[in-house]
Amino acid sequence: MVMALVETQTWSDEGMWLFNEPPRKLLKEKYDFEPDAAWLEHLQQASVRFNSGGSGSFVSEDGLIISNHHVGADALQKFSDQEHNYMRDGFYARSRSEEKKCLDLELNVLMGIEDVTGRVNAAVKEGLSAEAAFAARRAVMAEIEKESLAATGLRSDVVTLHQGGSYHLYRFKKYTDVRLVFAPEQQIAFYGGDPDNFEYPRFDLDICLFRAYENGEPAKVKHHLKWSQKGVSENELVFVSGHPGRTSRQFTVAELEYQRDVRMPYALQWLHRQEVLLNVFSGRSTEHARRARELYFGVQNSRKAREGMLAGLLDPQLFARKQAAEKRLRDIVAGNPDLRDCQNAWDQIQEAQKIIGAQAREFNLLEGGQGFSCTLFSIARTLVRSVEERTKPGGERLREFRESNLASLEMELFSEEPLYENLEQARLEDALTWLAQQLGYAHPVAQKALQGRSPRARASDLVRTTQVKEVAFRKKVYELSLAELKQCTDPMIQLALAVDAEARALRKVVETQDEVKKQAYSRIAKARFTADKGSIYPDATFTLRLAFGTVKGYEENGREVPFQTTLAGLYERAAEHQQQPPFNLPQRWIDGKPKLNLATPFNFVSTADIIGGNSGSPVVNRQGEFVGIIFDGNIQSLVLDFLYTDVQARAVSVNCQPIIEALRKIYEAGPLADELLGARQ
Amino acid sequence: MVMALVETQTWSDEGMWLFNEPPRKLLKEKYDFEPDAAWLEHLQQASVRFNSGGSGSFVSEDGLIISNHHVGADALQKFSDQEHNYMRDGFYARSRSEEKKCLDLELNVLMGIEDVTGRVNAAVKEGLSAEAAFAARRAVMAEIEKESLAATGLRSDVVTLHQGGSYHLYRFKKYTDVRLVFAPEQQIAFYGGDPDNFEYPRFDLDICLFRAYENGEPAKVKHHLKWSQKGVSENELVFVSGHPGRTSRQFTVAELEYQRDVRMPYALQWLHRQEVLLNVFSGRSTEHARRARELYFGVQNSRKAREGMLAGLLDPQLFARKQAAEKRLRDIVAGNPDLRDCQNAWDQIQEAQKIIGAQAREFNLLEGGQGFSCTLFSIARTLVRSVEERTKPGGERLREFRESNLASLEMELFSEEPLYENLEQARLEDALTWLAQQLGYAHPVAQKALQGRSPRARASDLVRTTQVKEVAFRKKVYELSLAELKQCTDPMIQLALAVDAEARALRKVVETQDEVKKQAYSRIAKARFTADKGSIYPDATFTLRLAFGTVKGYEENGREVPFQTTLAGLYERAAEHQQQPPFNLPQRWIDGKPKLNLATPFNFVSTADIIGGNSGSPVVNRQGEFVGIIFDGNIQSLVLDFLYTDVQARAVSVNCQPIIEALRKIYEAGPLADELLGARQ
Repeated sequence: MVMALVETQTWSDEGMWLFNEPPRKLLKEKYDFEPDAAWLEHLQQASVRFNSGGSGSFVSEDGLIISNHHVGADALQKFSDQEHNYMRDGFYARSRSEEKKCLDLELNVLMGIEDVTGRVNAAVKEGLSAEAAFAARRAVMAEIEKESLAATGLRSDVVTLHQGGSYHLYRFKKYTDVRLVFAPEQQIAFYGGDPDNFEYPRFDLDICLFRAYENGEPAKVKHHLKWSQKGVSENELVFVSGHPGRTSRQFTVAELEYQRDVRMPYALQWLHRQEVLLNVFSGRSTEHARRARELYFGVQNSRKAREGMLAGLLDPQLFARKQAAEKRLRDIVAGNPDLRDCQNAWDQIQEAQKIIGAQAREFNLLEGGQGFSCTLFSIARTLVRSVEERTKPGGERLREFRESNLASLEMELFSEEPLYENLEQARLEDALTWLAQQLGYAHPVAQKALQGRSPRARASDLVRTTQVKEVAFRKKVYELSLAELKQCTDPMIQLALAVDAEARALRKVVETQDEVKKQAYSRIAKARFTADKGSIYPDATFTLRLAFGTVKGYEENGREVPFQTTLAGLYERAAEHQQQPPFNLPQRWIDGKPKLNLATPFNFVSTADIIGGNSGSPVVNRQGEFVGIIFDGNIQSLVLDFLYTDVQARAVSVNCQPIIEALRKIYEAGPLADELLGARQ
Repeated sequence: MVMALVETQTWSDEGMWLFNEPPRKLLKEKYDFEPDAAWLEHLQQASVRFNSGGSGSFVSEDGLIISNHHVGADALQKFSDQEHNYMRDGFYARSRSEEKKCLDLELNVLMGIEDVTGRVNAAVKEGLSAEAAFAARRAVMAEIEKESLAATGLRSDVVTLHQGGSYHLYRFKKYTDVRLVFAPEQQIAFYGGDPDNFEYPRFDLDICLFRAYENGEPAKVKHHLKWSQKGVSENELVFVSGHPGRTSRQFTVAELEYQRDVRMPYALQWLHRQEVLLNVFSGRSTEHARRARELYFGVQNSRKAREGMLAGLLDPQLFARKQAAEKRLRDIVAGNPDLRDCQNAWDQIQEAQKIIGAQAREFNLLEGGQGFSCTLFSIARTLVRSVEERTKPGGERLREFRESNLASLEMELFSEEPLYENLEQARLEDALTWLAQQLGYAHPVAQKALQGRSPRARASDLVRTTQVKEVAFRKKVYELSLAELKQCTDPMIQLALAVDAEARALRKVVETQDEVKKQAYSRIAKARFTADKGSIYPDATFTLRLAFGTVKGYEENGREVPFQTTLAGLYERAAEHQQQPPFNLPQRWIDGKPKLNLATPFNFVSTADIIGGNSGSPVVNRQGEFVGIIFDGNIQSLVLDFLYTDVQARAVSVNCQPIIEALRKIYEAGPLADELLGARQ
């Protein structure tokens, strides 16, 4: 692999670009394509962010939204019960009245972007201590957001880009009445299960259809994507518009080493533990399995993703590329007097990271909540902090309690999401055991949490007796004064109160050091702007980005992996595995086989630059037509977290064509297929 | 729970007693039972140790041996292949000629015990350094064993009892031609899978029948157990004769704290990781699952056992009992001038443990082999060390290479056990990743192991190219001189050579500090002999012990758990779970239901004091008749690792009756049932 070439060449399909700074030059030079403002605006406003974590798009004028099944799974899980297992059995609303309202799903559509870097930086005076700078920055961001919300009525978030190199104000239209229209069986949406996750070739119908409502009526949506009749062809240029969650591409080499040697191993340790816990819990009965389903899937998915990232960090060839790129930039800095103030940025980041690293374990346990990991504790903590934060001015609050975010926070806090005592108890017992293990049983915080009991006995008591289970109780506690809260006898509230001072202290250290890093990174960003003449994109921030790429296969172990699979391939794979889980087919698909056109393309790969959070992103062609939907990356794509490569790394999508084929022939959902094809338009 | 009472009272069914020091007084006082020498000798010589880890007993004069299915699983796994899945399908030899020879199974029968404490201690002169004392002790033990082997032809092991308080020479008759006669489907042997493992009530036919051969003929066995026709009744006195593997009952409180806060969490971290690895590997296909089956079961079993032990250590009430017992003993020591030399024993143990703890991580990785964990590396290391150790006198060799052990070692080393490249590669990749994580990627040993490659690439190369896979190659390497070995170009041999110096250095530190602990523990043992007037038993050492107990149920969450289950209960449980795995029944059991007497007792519990290694132990009544076979302990029994309790802790057995019922009616194995019932005698 040629190092310097990959880092400086301009011909790769790299980048998660801002919609207000699209890669015009790249697209023009490599593909002779020039997106105009209307093209960009249409795609931007047809794109939808799922606040539960994921992406989607409008695909009809009546507010129909397509996303992945695994993005919708959170909603599906929350309104399933022992009698209605929508995850297993799927769902189809044959009429508008059957569409099922999601309990706590908020969707965001990006309406506009405003650069507020100047105002943010002006508020953070030169020479402030890191702590004061952090407070000043938090205050000005909360102020900008509050003003914008008041002025526009739109959800307003100041987004930190380039690790602090710039600040943009994003305004979102919010949808909070979102209804489920269609979901296939999880067995076909996630065909091949964990073994096939992050792999290719794939055979998955990983889709879910929702409808946005406003004032009790389907939302009328001007910007929705036209459904392509022809899908994709090999070597075609495609675009992905979605919300990549987080990347580490600007990390210094020292930070990557920390990721490789400390952070990632620790995260995997926790994930392995959670995976065993949830696998064991699920083994007890089909109802246990149903209750833990989505959580278990999430843990497995994170584990596999992180294993792949770690494998990349442990690959000396890939790591050498990062070292070479850093050296190149540092050499440029050293040779350019205008960049003198960037010189010590790398060392400052390493110093700050050392301080963060020294207490990372306690931070994860107490502020990260691993030591109390269960939904009931999260609720209790949010309640406790809400009461306390409300006593402060907006700009001084912990960021998630800023005024402009309260509506979203309350929606989640007062969700009627079902909670299962046996699952909560298993999780909390495990978490308290982990806490005692990590801190040592005799540690004062472990003792405070356990109150002289065993983790098992303490978890049982807490889960059995807390009233936090009741939404009405939560609303009551939410309204308490701080003095009243401290008198509250609920044991989970008391636990959250008891460990809050330690948790906040740890958070403060991290936030302060993050400020130090932010300032140093913003200087490195300045150097990069100079070195790369402005053609750079920021690390992912779970905000809307435009990626592009070519539809094409790759070579693996001397074998060509074709760019697409077909429905016929699905049936072949099931037969190869004698229909054993996770390679079995839902009964509908077994019965429906004769009706299907088996030559229909199913899944395809492209070189587009994506990462977790892009799940459900629409894939569109030059005409802006919907040709597919992102649902995965292959195993080689997991290194995209820290660098782009197109040798084998691929984004994996469902083609638009099998969606129509399955809706008509497997699910008898012709009217829905008609709506997607615009028959009602 | 009354602390002092439990530790000093003589009425509980506590103890894993030596056959040459049985609990005569206890049995007489509580049960009015006095075993005579013939009763003890018969039971001792009818008991069988499985060197693969487990217990069993002779049950016919023609050398028929009964053990657990999960003890036999190692042998079953080794002669299964893609076409013959004996684990899944079971096995029954309808004639002697169909009995299948196990690849590398060695059985031991204890023929005699000799106290050699005097000779061992005489060889370890007062005032020697710990390192010299360790060497002297190792040398005298190897000498005693070598002499005994030469004199008697019997396998001879000096067993360290009471953590070094005494030394007994055990002489075993060895059987190395052992053939499989019968195994049920794993699905009924391990009914309920991981969820039901270490739980009660249970419904498992966890048995396996082997036959010992001598000179190509079935062994003629004088001491074999008579099969009871009546099984057990509630409140009956029963005995368990088997090989408990390891307990920690004499550990000081400081050592228990180390177990709780360091050792056990670390072990669980490794096990969680292994469990996820093997679960993921198994998910890829039914053949993958078959290959990893026994390993996966072993990991799950260890994980659940250790979780249970840790839960016990994290229970302040149980821990307080250990603290109180230690305080009592230390008070006695303080008040008795004859015990003056015991006073500093506790501190010495803690000091030694600190040194061990400080390098435990590297020890586990390098000498414990976690950093290279796969069968091919184990073979390579054994080869490398065999060559080197052979250049030394017997008494100076690493203990496993002493002359008296070579035959057993070679049997394992040259086993034709099938090895699967994909499983080896998955394990080694994971192990090398773990090594890099735990040491840091840049650590010299990690670099030496990885040779500048990624763990994935390095593991793939090693597994693909090593010839250690071939038994013929192993035999060739085994015969090399040390100089020739160092020229060997096989990459796995080279890896084993490359890390051997570091591994041996770590082992030396541990062995030296273990010697310090051993000397201190032997002084504590002296104090305990004084305090408890000789009525004590040593911690478990995977040698033959006699336990006893009462057949009885217990109370759990306010509910009575009856002492036994029935075959009817099995079918009820399967129905409750809609036959979903792991609660599904094998087809034979579904078809055979009408033929069975469903009132037949199935599993039962007793208060006998057991631990891992007791699996397969015969349960006998006062008459010495076989009434059942140990296969598990309930979840509450897992604390027996560090203290005995009979409040809820129970040993779980298969009753003898359903074995006959199933052989006759489900497996059409009437002749085998007849042989068990002595029809041929």
